[in-house]
Amino acid sequence: MSYQPPVQDLMFCIKHLSHWDQVGTLGAYAGYDLSDIDAVLEAYARFCSEQIAPLSHIGDTLGSKFDSGRVTMPEGVVQAYAQFVEMGWQALTHPTEHGGMGLPRAVGAAAVEMLNAADMSFGLCPLLTDGAIEALLLTGSSEQKNTYLEPLIAGRWSGTMNLTEPQAGSDLGLVATKAVARGDGKYGITGTKIYITYGVHDLTENIIHLVLARTPDAPAGPKGVSLFIVPQTMVETDGTLGARNSVDCVSIEHKLGVRASPTAVLQYNDATGFLIGEENCGLEYMFIMMNAARFAVGVQGIATSDRAYQRALAYARDRVQSRPVNGQSKDAVTIIEHPDVRRMLLRMRSLTEGGRAMAAATAGLLDIAHHQDHPEMARLAEFMVPLVKGFCSERAVEVASLGVQIHGGMGFIEETGAAQHYRDARILPIYEGTTAIQANDLLGRKVMRDGGETARLFAARIVETEAELAAGDATLQAIGASLAQARGAFDATLDWMLENSRRDIDAAFAGSVPFLMLVGTLAAGWKLAKAALSAQAARDAGQDTPFLTQKIATALFFAQHILPDCGADHTRILHGSRSLLDAAFPE
Amino acid sequence: MSYQPPVQDLMFCIKHLSHWDQVGTLGAYAGYDLSDIDAVLEAYARFCSEQIAPLSHIGDTLGSKFDSGRVTMPEGVVQAYAQFVEMGWQALTHPTEHGGMGLPRAVGAAAVEMLNAADMSFGLCPLLTDGAIEALLLTGSSEQKNTYLEPLIAGRWSGTMNLTEPQAGSDLGLVATKAVARGDGKYGITGTKIYITYGVHDLTENIIHLVLARTPDAPAGPKGVSLFIVPQTMVETDGTLGARNSVDCVSIEHKLGVRASPTAVLQYNDATGFLIGEENCGLEYMFIMMNAARFAVGVQGIATSDRAYQRALAYARDRVQSRPVNGQSKDAVTIIEHPDVRRMLLRMRSLTEGGRAMAAATAGLLDIAHHQDHPEMARLAEFMVPLVKGFCSERAVEVASLGVQIHGGMGFIEETGAAQHYRDARILPIYEGTTAIQANDLLGRKVMRDGGETARLFAARIVETEAELAAGDATLQAIGASLAQARGAFDATLDWMLENSRRDIDAAFAGSVPFLMLVGTLAAGWKLAKAALSAQAARDAGQDTPFLTQKIATALFFAQHILPDCGADHTRILHGSRSLLDAAFPE
Repeated sequence: MSYQPPVQDLMFCIKHLSHWDQVGTLGAYAGYDLSDIDAVLEAYARFCSEQIAPLSHIGDTLGSKFDSGRVTMPEGVVQAYAQFVEMGWQALTHPTEHGGMGLPRAVGAAAVEMLNAADMSFGLCPLLTDGAIEALLLTGSSEQKNTYLEPLIAGRWSGTMNLTEPQAGSDLGLVATKAVARGDGKYGITGTKIYITYGVHDLTENIIHLVLARTPDAPAGPKGVSLFIVPQTMVETDGTLGARNSVDCVSIEHKLGVRASPTAVLQYNDATGFLIGEENCGLEYMFIMMNAARFAVGVQGIATSDRAYQRALAYARDRVQSRPVNGQSKDAVTIIEHPDVRRMLLRMRSLTEGGRAMAAATAGLLDIAHHQDHPEMARLAEFMVPLVKGFCSERAVEVASLGVQIHGGMGFIEETGAAQHYRDARILPIYEGTTAIQANDLLGRKVMRDGGETARLFAARIVETEAELAAGDATLQAIGASLAQARGAFDATLDWMLENSRRDIDAAFAGSVPFLMLVGTLAAGWKLAKAALSAQAARDAGQDTPFLTQKIATALFFAQHILPDCGADHTRILHGSRSLLDAAFPE
Repeated sequence: MSYQPPVQDLMFCIKHLSHWDQVGTLGAYAGYDLSDIDAVLEAYARFCSEQIAPLSHIGDTLGSKFDSGRVTMPEGVVQAYAQFVEMGWQALTHPTEHGGMGLPRAVGAAAVEMLNAADMSFGLCPLLTDGAIEALLLTGSSEQKNTYLEPLIAGRWSGTMNLTEPQAGSDLGLVATKAVARGDGKYGITGTKIYITYGVHDLTENIIHLVLARTPDAPAGPKGVSLFIVPQTMVETDGTLGARNSVDCVSIEHKLGVRASPTAVLQYNDATGFLIGEENCGLEYMFIMMNAARFAVGVQGIATSDRAYQRALAYARDRVQSRPVNGQSKDAVTIIEHPDVRRMLLRMRSLTEGGRAMAAATAGLLDIAHHQDHPEMARLAEFMVPLVKGFCSERAVEVASLGVQIHGGMGFIEETGAAQHYRDARILPIYEGTTAIQANDLLGRKVMRDGGETARLFAARIVETEAELAAGDATLQAIGASLAQARGAFDATLDWMLENSRRDIDAAFAGSVPFLMLVGTLAAGWKLAKAALSAQAARDAGQDTPFLTQKIATALFFAQHILPDCGADHTRILHGSRSLLDAAFPE
């Protein structure tokens, strides 16, 4: 099925939700106005829908193939990637001084969404390269930046993150890979890394691995981990490629989804590595750049959701089955006429657009925090990142599952394509930190650490939106009423969490994931409510398009069908901690 | 991973929840007491865990293979099925006069659960044969019964249901397969049937297809569909096998899950068929036997959930990762120590045991309804069947997804096995009537048709349980409080549904699936509450086993973590119908 990039909605989110009034005035983005951005996104949309989307099913069917240390990508991927490089798309959001286009993060989010909706397996390669670029920008020496950034930003080389080992997943303090200083400023890296996305492939002439490892005298635990650059092929001082480094791919995984994306087991045998920054600060550096990677995975969730929605919508408009329940027709109708199919489609749409609204807002906050000294915006940005990752990835699994359901029996047949989204989506709540890791980050670092100050700021902003909604028409008022109720559930839960952060820390963390989902749901509903206000303002100003009508309808549906989950999570958290902690698991 | 059949819990459910005080006194079951049943289930448990469970991963990996009209089952399945036949397991619940063992339905449910937990792909063959046996028992002529029942009940032949055609899925009134009377009492059947589970295989010497088709002068729609027996190989008057009938397998499907179970496209080319009952009554007959089939699919949901739970529990006990959030240990601990892993495990366990409790109760009601003239029990049984199917199948998808999540990155690797449950479970809310079909059945036929009388009877029974809980200790009281709140949400939703059944039928059906989930969740929570009462009574009588403690803990967890969903569904239904019905889907 073809993919229709949602450029209109992406532009609406950038204009109305990404704090464009502030982001647009930042010096870094002085060269761009909204019409430039629209032109860039339209061009990228064409590339994604025409060149990449057709690869998705082929790649899923063929998978990437491993043979004697080498990986062959599925048919068409090499050519498509070459075109991606030729058109310069990797450069989109990266700094102009290293060859980037320097576009704002909200535009980057829109681009990541479209590419990953077209084909998540393909999208993972640039996504990991973005991560490596981000890491080098933030922590690399100027020599390292000069050596690696230009070819990475051009997309000629790709990047990877080598964190996980068999015994060290969520807990990276357990990393055991060894890094021994050779005396010439270089290190010999030895160990096994697993789950390395695009750890080996035939798309680029070099792969730059960023590797967590431990020097011989490093302290145990998280404070003894360092970060290294380990190029697959050594780079000479003139920038040309030299000898192959001693890092080998042992195997690639046979996975539930994203099957065209090779997930490698890499063996480092005294491979040459270059220290980034200081020894023993590796995890700290990872945390700095993790925001971008986690945000991007949340956006992958929106992407998968939208593709699943588009597929289900097309099917529901086409498939004729059963008479309407109200008896208005004696003939069978297209299934989009049936109330429960509408319910499922609207859940899919409102969760997708709610995620997109939240991501655009967060991207704007991240930009302002990056370019200005604005502690409030910075803290809100930090608060929002685990929500984007946690909420959008968990909801993507639900949305993809609804997409299968709408297809009925056809949904279970692989050729239909709906099942691929259900399989692909399942990795999203796991990689770049599981949902529980996001929830611990939210509760521990973003809520408890400042005694709830940022969380109360977040709630206060929602109260402002409630007031605007209350001054609107009946529909906006209805959205406002549901929003106020959900925000009330949040306030009460927050009080309880803060109290238990002192009194009973286990009880607090017993509710961490329900809390994450409560806050994420509230945040998405809030941003959609703001979208409805903007849409109504545009209508009041004389515009009246189906898009604006639909946006308000989506926000209302979210308010009345998704926001009620906040109340259930509130109940679970406040009344469920003992039953959770005290239950035994007899042998 | 090995499968541990939950015989203790299955026996507990039969004893305390399946209305055993009444079922055990039915004449049909006079020969059996609980210790006989325990012995049968123990023997079947051994067969399932030792012979069948090891096939599950092999079958998923190899799949069934199609070549020129024939299907080869994966390695080991033919031998295991031969053993299944030799041990006579197909006979378990079928009438003794046709060679069955005549055990109660609750025992049958326990057996179906164990076999499908061991391997759902394997379990589907006997499940479909059970359906064909049920159909013949209810609607076959005595000649048909004499010809087909004995070999089906012995498992030497298998049965199939041929309902779906490309244009006729949920709406079987659109069936177009032709049945032309030949004048000798036989019919020539011509048409294409799809999604035929075990429509072709190499396990039995004959396959008995039950086929919906339409005679030339039949009225259009559901009242013109007749039901036919079409044997794959003709049966001579002496019971021996004759010529092959003209029904051919064109292909089998490439599916998301249950990959060892062949799903066939069957082509009938003037195949010889025998009418069951009267012409044009085919759908009526299908509805009579559908209860059993739908109930069995709900039990498959419990089965998949339990297998996913057992696998996740074993992993969580074994996998060491991260220090505890409360700082009690400086070392990493097994992940079962982490509150959110416990939360996920307890969700899996309580949803599994809640489904099992509900299924046992429903099996008892079906038995009483079948053997006695007890209209109240019969109506409650009818009310419960769509709940067992809808709730247990939808929740199985959630449980299997949690199972993947607990495994982290390992969950996404196919060799781990957790992903298989996630893939297998996805068919359950689709086949034998989608969740929306179950919800329409519940709302239209089981709630509105009698003006809510059965639904109020259901609620009144729960009120009785609430009173018992209120007289218990603090834990039982806490369960009772949550149950009362959920039942209150049900009462209010029911009133609204009944009012809208007259005023705004679309609004009512816009909430049909949330209503099904609300009632299913309430029913499971209620039955688990009754289980907790029985467990506490046993403890009060001097037994104090880990099993009883765990049962009460599970019921409390369900009450505090799952029952709160009822309130959210109540809100969605009462306040969300307009936003659902009025939203547009612009091109």
